[in-house]
Amino acid sequence: MSEQLNLSQAAKISADMLLPLRGSRKVHIEGEQAGVRVPMREISVSPTGVQGANGTPRLEPNPPVRVYDTSGPFTDPDVDVDIRAGLAPIRAPWIEARGDTEQLDGFSSGFTNERNLDPKLERLRFAHLRSPRCAKAGKNVTQLHYARQGIVTPEMEYIAIRENLVHANTPSDVEPHPGQNFGANTPAEITPEFVREEVARGRAIIPSNINHPESEPMIIGRSFLVKVNANIGNSAVTSSIEEEVEKLVWATRWGGDTVMDLSTGKNIHETREWIIRNSPVPIGTVPIYQALEKTHGIAEDLTWEIFRDTLIEQAEQGVDYFTIHAGVLLRYVPLTARRTTGIVSRGGSIMAKWCLAHHEENFLYTHFEDICEIMKAYDVSFSLGDGLRPGSVADANDEAQLSELETLGELTKIAWQHDVQTMIEGPGHVPMQLIKENMEKQLEVCDEAPFYTLGPLTTDIAPGYDHITSGIGAAMIGWYGCAMLCYVTPKEHLGLPNKEDVREGIVTYKIAAHAGDLAKGHPGAQIRDDALSKARFEFRWDDQFNLGLDPDKAREFHDETLPKDSAKVAHFCSMCGPKFCSMKISQDVRQAAGVNEDRIVMIDVEAEMAQKSEEFRDSGSEIYQKV
Amino acid sequence: MSEQLNLSQAAKISADMLLPLRGSRKVHIEGEQAGVRVPMREISVSPTGVQGANGTPRLEPNPPVRVYDTSGPFTDPDVDVDIRAGLAPIRAPWIEARGDTEQLDGFSSGFTNERNLDPKLERLRFAHLRSPRCAKAGKNVTQLHYARQGIVTPEMEYIAIRENLVHANTPSDVEPHPGQNFGANTPAEITPEFVREEVARGRAIIPSNINHPESEPMIIGRSFLVKVNANIGNSAVTSSIEEEVEKLVWATRWGGDTVMDLSTGKNIHETREWIIRNSPVPIGTVPIYQALEKTHGIAEDLTWEIFRDTLIEQAEQGVDYFTIHAGVLLRYVPLTARRTTGIVSRGGSIMAKWCLAHHEENFLYTHFEDICEIMKAYDVSFSLGDGLRPGSVADANDEAQLSELETLGELTKIAWQHDVQTMIEGPGHVPMQLIKENMEKQLEVCDEAPFYTLGPLTTDIAPGYDHITSGIGAAMIGWYGCAMLCYVTPKEHLGLPNKEDVREGIVTYKIAAHAGDLAKGHPGAQIRDDALSKARFEFRWDDQFNLGLDPDKAREFHDETLPKDSAKVAHFCSMCGPKFCSMKISQDVRQAAGVNEDRIVMIDVEAEMAQKSEEFRDSGSEIYQKV
Repeated sequence: MSEQLNLSQAAKISADMLLPLRGSRKVHIEGEQAGVRVPMREISVSPTGVQGANGTPRLEPNPPVRVYDTSGPFTDPDVDVDIRAGLAPIRAPWIEARGDTEQLDGFSSGFTNERNLDPKLERLRFAHLRSPRCAKAGKNVTQLHYARQGIVTPEMEYIAIRENLVHANTPSDVEPHPGQNFGANTPAEITPEFVREEVARGRAIIPSNINHPESEPMIIGRSFLVKVNANIGNSAVTSSIEEEVEKLVWATRWGGDTVMDLSTGKNIHETREWIIRNSPVPIGTVPIYQALEKTHGIAEDLTWEIFRDTLIEQAEQGVDYFTIHAGVLLRYVPLTARRTTGIVSRGGSIMAKWCLAHHEENFLYTHFEDICEIMKAYDVSFSLGDGLRPGSVADANDEAQLSELETLGELTKIAWQHDVQTMIEGPGHVPMQLIKENMEKQLEVCDEAPFYTLGPLTTDIAPGYDHITSGIGAAMIGWYGCAMLCYVTPKEHLGLPNKEDVREGIVTYKIAAHAGDLAKGHPGAQIRDDALSKARFEFRWDDQFNLGLDPDKAREFHDETLPKDSAKVAHFCSMCGPKFCSMKISQDVRQAAGVNEDRIVMIDVEAEMAQKSEEFRDSGSEIYQKV
Repeated sequence: MSEQLNLSQAAKISADMLLPLRGSRKVHIEGEQAGVRVPMREISVSPTGVQGANGTPRLEPNPPVRVYDTSGPFTDPDVDVDIRAGLAPIRAPWIEARGDTEQLDGFSSGFTNERNLDPKLERLRFAHLRSPRCAKAGKNVTQLHYARQGIVTPEMEYIAIRENLVHANTPSDVEPHPGQNFGANTPAEITPEFVREEVARGRAIIPSNINHPESEPMIIGRSFLVKVNANIGNSAVTSSIEEEVEKLVWATRWGGDTVMDLSTGKNIHETREWIIRNSPVPIGTVPIYQALEKTHGIAEDLTWEIFRDTLIEQAEQGVDYFTIHAGVLLRYVPLTARRTTGIVSRGGSIMAKWCLAHHEENFLYTHFEDICEIMKAYDVSFSLGDGLRPGSVADANDEAQLSELETLGELTKIAWQHDVQTMIEGPGHVPMQLIKENMEKQLEVCDEAPFYTLGPLTTDIAPGYDHITSGIGAAMIGWYGCAMLCYVTPKEHLGLPNKEDVREGIVTYKIAAHAGDLAKGHPGAQIRDDALSKARFEFRWDDQFNLGLDPDKAREFHDETLPKDSAKVAHFCSMCGPKFCSMKISQDVRQAAGVNEDRIVMIDVEAEMAQKSEEFRDSGSEIYQKV
């Protein structure tokens, strides 16, 4: 559907996006505070068929596996989602109960009011605009502020339950590998109080604008699960509002923990409203993009007033975090002139151009405390942009990048003085041997504020595969302590991603994030790996597919060579054929080495093997003996 | 084409596989020894348009980039490849000149003779069977033997030229990042003598069976470029001989450094002959697979005699390295019984089954010196198989795996006593925090013999994406010192890869290998990244595509959103549109900050910026000023 149609009447999400992922259902875990009801995706798992000591076959149940669920009400069959109405504002009672905010009579942004009065935009406009909420005079409504007051908010309890994979699951009987947590301090049991402490310390943020009560609370910090951000957004060249809402639903379906709306085309105000009203995850933006639209693309014409109005416009819509390129200082710009790829951040290059044209210091830097005042009135978090991030391995960790990082560290401390939640954006293109240095430098300079990186890409030579070049770097930096990974799709450097690219990019980044969680030793992270591997070993094909990050693709790939349903219970696959299957032989070996596990540990290799050898031949070793 | 047709008459490679990769041509660098003529792929690069100080536009040439080329004569328009005749035996004169081998009257394997006499196989048989070559009595014809005698073979000189990316290219003016080479010792200039030393030390191998004279010499060792192996091979369920030859050509086209033929179906003898005769890269096999075919899939019926005949059969066809699972000892088998995924190596499980059934020690272990005698008569290299590698992160680095590794270390020393070249196979599934330990343990236990790993996969939860879960681990272990990475395709665990999966798997692993080369600091590795990034920054779209690992896919992705040819010279792309392009703005910034680079370094920020600001506005900053 193009923007020519009346979105309010026609907008619908494809039906296949409203089904739960294959083999799973939505469950909820209740908290102690009112309204804390945490969704998880529960993947059902079939039983294992075993042969008892007396030869009788029986079924041994396997516990279902509960995994972190970012998909919101869209995959909940009990909720009838209507994107024209938006999602239920689950956080509204908590926000109201705190009594430190008030509902305004109207919008505070001149631009918003202009748009809302324009009859030509009627057909694009979200039909149920809500009056915005703002902190009462003198109040600070950030989660950081509450945390520092010692308050455990419902958001914090929600998060503690959500992150606690051990509690949500029956742990597998496999001993998890100890991770290497590089100075983070995740406890075995993630409590609401621990969440509060990490937020108070500035080591984690809970992006949660009071005007986005639809969002399901989540946390970004290195003592927690590594998160993934997906970018969506139209450009002047392509895509429509409805496509963007579909991308949002699609992105959260596959596991996007936050979504950034990077739209730069026309109608971005209206697009954003639709996105936020339908988003179960925090939404981030780069407000300078919209400000530049307001100056018709002329960077030199940007002013603090235009920018300020844009911040308020977006804060009152409910944007949860703003990328602010306040570290691009005038004196750093010449440091980029000799680079291989100059400045590759859009926001960074806009600000650099502004600085040069005016020969003045970046107004985002000079007005930083003014920005803090706005942030804390709505609880918008900072994502301090790395406008001078390297765009090639040649430029990695150079003076421009590291100088800006120093400034971001300085700004972090100012934001914290205002109790404004803050994370720091990072590169970009970095060869593997320099990734750890990046992470350590960031932790040191920014006093452990969460790091949020784009990749990094570990080589420049694979356009068309940059989800992979960057997935490598993302997994590593996630392990080293990066809190959130901004996804990269296969289209990076080449074009705008379509739906399939978005899925490919997110799944790649979920792999990177999960590999990071395993390596850090996040409690319970390995439960899913263990369940999947057990299913694989026991030829429970459907379980193997369903426990994976993308059940549809796994099934589709399997069916290409062995499409029949009977193959789903086959004790081999097309890779090796029945005779050569190592899994099958290995099970025979296991049986030969002692049919049940209790006996295995008692085996005296020297003495019992000869007898086993007899038994093995007698029992007809080629016949697969499980039921 | 199915196997029903007469391959000798009809076999042909698709025409599109015989074209050079887009934008490149085959060049050769001559060595000093006779016949040393090393192919490289030279990627042409367009000039940069610049504006001189006086405003006159001019073109500044960019040097072409020469990259390592594994594709053999197939991409050489000067060679008319006929796969019915096979490739030219370029190494034959070198082998003959050494005078330590003799051409036999016939084949030494009973099985080979049986096949060659079977008239029913006529239609499948390669038409130009060559009598095999073997070491003269008492001679050792391995490259390791020569190296230890102080002989620099033509193979070694060929490799020194091939690995020397600095010498082959005009280095870019970008300072490469120093790598972190974890104890390897690549010199700035890779000389033939250095190659000899590394081979003599056992730290590198040159797989080069004297019966595979068609192969272009290459080296596997951690002081050299990280290599990639691609597996092909039919199974009982699918695929034909011609498909396998096509996969070989396809795999080397995208950068496979060696190819393993893992066929387990019928006619594997004939399939292998076609593959070797047409392979410009070393071919590896797992002989136990074919031996098991000879016992109709009954592992217990395997004997040393059957296996020995299989080794000779394959050695006389020209297989360059054999995976031998000699480390799967009887006493290690029970260590796998409690594992999550038991034994996942096909060869490992076959041997485990044999050991248990006979309650005898693995005959590959007890006959190891007999195997060495065969290897050194043809210069077949060992790839000591890790039959007990972990098949899940739960089983990583467990006692079974590490015990087998100790045995492989012991066997390495025995192989070296026979001057037989040896590398060691490694896992498998390993979470990130355990990868380095794997690499270090292998170097220690196996006295720095090259490591050759499958992945490792860093999580188990992404069937359908295991090229990515494993590409992460592969890049890391390549950096840490792994010499060759065995590719994994998206179909891993699910089915046999098709042509597109093979491409996806290889390109993913070329990324991992190259990321490893950059991180190690291999001299000249960064030249390609720098050239591509410069092209990207200057909007030379075709150069960006052609310098990438997969020019076709990059172009295809770009064309999806901006298909017109005019877009190939556009100074923006569909991602951000013309106004928001950071690259474009960044170039404006560069110009504003001092049009030519000589002036940039002289800029006094404090004094000159004000004046620049004026000039910038005056010069019409929105107009893109390059020609």
